Amino acid sequence: MSGLTDVAGVLVGQYERVGDGWATGTTVVLVPEGATGAVDQRGGAPGTRETDLLQPENRVRLVNAICLSGGSAYGLAAADGVMRWLGERGLGFPAGKLPHHVVPIVPAAVLFDLPHGDWGNRPDAAFGYAACEAASAGPIAQGTVGAGAGATVGSLKGGIGTASEVVEGFTVGAIAALNAYGEAVDFATGRPFAADHEVDGEFGGQWPDRPGAAPAAPARFNTTIGVVAVDAALSKAEVKRLAVAAQDGMARTVRPAHTMYDGDTAFALATGERELPPIGPGRLGDADRVATLNLLCAAAARAFARAMVHGLLSATSTAGLPAYRDVWPA
Amino acid sequence: MSGLTDVAGVLVGQYERVGDGWATGTTVVLVPEGATGAVDQRGGAPGTRETDLLQPENRVRLVNAICLSGGSAYGLAAADGVMRWLGERGLGFPAGKLPHHVVPIVPAAVLFDLPHGDWGNRPDAAFGYAACEAASAGPIAQGTVGAGAGATVGSLKGGIGTASEVVEGFTVGAIAALNAYGEAVDFATGRPFAADHEVDGEFGGQWPDRPGAAPAAPARFNTTIGVVAVDAALSKAEVKRLAVAAQDGMARTVRPAHTMYDGDTAFALATGERELPPIGPGRLGDADRVATLNLLCAAAARAFARAMVHGLLSATSTAGLPAYRDVWPA
Repeated sequence: MSGLTDVAGVLVGQYERVGDGWATGTTVVLVPEGATGAVDQRGGAPGTRETDLLQPENRVRLVNAICLSGGSAYGLAAADGVMRWLGERGLGFPAGKLPHHVVPIVPAAVLFDLPHGDWGNRPDAAFGYAACEAASAGPIAQGTVGAGAGATVGSLKGGIGTASEVVEGFTVGAIAALNAYGEAVDFATGRPFAADHEVDGEFGGQWPDRPGAAPAAPARFNTTIGVVAVDAALSKAEVKRLAVAAQDGMARTVRPAHTMYDGDTAFALATGERELPPIGPGRLGDADRVATLNLLCAAAARAFARAMVHGLLSATSTAGLPAYRDVWPA
Repeated sequence: MSGLTDVAGVLVGQYERVGDGWATGTTVVLVPEGATGAVDQRGGAPGTRETDLLQPENRVRLVNAICLSGGSAYGLAAADGVMRWLGERGLGFPAGKLPHHVVPIVPAAVLFDLPHGDWGNRPDAAFGYAACEAASAGPIAQGTVGAGAGATVGSLKGGIGTASEVVEGFTVGAIAALNAYGEAVDFATGRPFAADHEVDGEFGGQWPDRPGAAPAAPARFNTTIGVVAVDAALSKAEVKRLAVAAQDGMARTVRPAHTMYDGDTAFALATGERELPPIGPGRLGDADRVATLNLLCAAAARAFARAMVHGLLSATSTAGLPAYRDVWPA
């Protein structure tokens, strides 16, 4: 299992600019024909777009893409480019009589990475469009790419990471742009806080067990954003449970998480390929369905935490920020 | 009292294109130095931006502008232009060491007016920027302008309207882009549902009391969006009460309101000029403060309803849609 694109029908595209005064980018999770979407927003300083429509009581069910960007609130403009790319292809909520009369549904969240480049160098609509052009179902580049290009985590360089697992026959995937006020590593040992989520030696199987030198003036920028997806058929309210679970993955990976300075936001998507046990008659007729959903949620938390650790370990030094691999060389 | 700009420090700017395949626009409520902001989102099909940060538990308190646009979700791009205009002036949340290191806080909501022009003719960042350029503290143009340019209400043309009142020495103002699935008028009599909110004969003081011919195929597009503002100093949670109250103004003016097809969203701003009674000691030490807030909320509901009626009465026929004044000529 390699990451979010293990969930059938989910594409990921990224675009970033690094160097020449730039250190930012955009990651787009594309589900062109739509997936049932939800969001859980828990950090104290969010920058978001189209999150109200994701509330379970609201009407729009299918999301066409999720746009994750650097650039703080300026980076919300990247979603304009994703909408244009989808609209040109007639993909979106049908809102008129002709095939191109669609309104693409593109919820978005941003992270704060502006100090690492020139202040005016921020993702715009062209970043979102370029990320869509690059989208594929193939392996996802991790580290200093896409929305992780300018990311930091506590004292270190952050980045994009991804992971997936199979549970009860369902594939659960996650992608995260690790960028947090808190730390993801115990500096006394070099061990990531979520190290024990490792599957099949994916993190390298061993940890330095020696102190690392933390930078004198940690960056302390903020906001982890990401997406979990599953190939199950779920209601909007059920999908929201997956976003809630992803935030638990964040809590395990970063200390402190969800601070007043973080805009931590987790989106969730259900592509609808495979059915859960239906709700049967009787007062506990939903018990099997709820039990299965519970297993999917536990998997979402694990996958999100693993994605964040991959973001940490894959990151490379950018804009003078040391990466994990610089402090604890292999 | 003429409208929202009666609240000191609040500016309104509008930009629209009507004709040549266009019928849409943008209305910006500017509070350059910031006002405490909140939102209440109640319609079932919203298109919004930066509403999560307005939740009372989140960190950002001061809003620099609210952007209201046509164009459905595409129109969220107008907020990019408002951010640029503010950022060029160093106005926004301070997020770096230099004066221009600001992130302007621009929550936004959109309404659905796309069928009245060519599908691709939608507000973009340039609309938001142009609306800021046009902003003033003077009287506000009503009817087929700004975000009301392509608006409809049930069978009729909708539009922008505004109103204000003074209560307990506080000025409470509202602006609304009236665009609803429901009707705002009793077609049997020509009387708007919120007619009894009239102050000082502002609606003309008399109603036709005769049936009007409803269009055979009502437009039935959707979403009323707007802003209420007060010159009081309030917490974010207190400001939210004003947004909640504005939605009651909507409920009185449109039937049905808040449908599954409407993205009805009300923002509220408190500019902080005048203090409410402080919270004193004792179990009911907040009683005077709560009582005053209650009066402000009742005023916000009234002002929002009156603003919507002004939007109805000021609207002029556009894109073949009859206006109130066409069905019931004076």
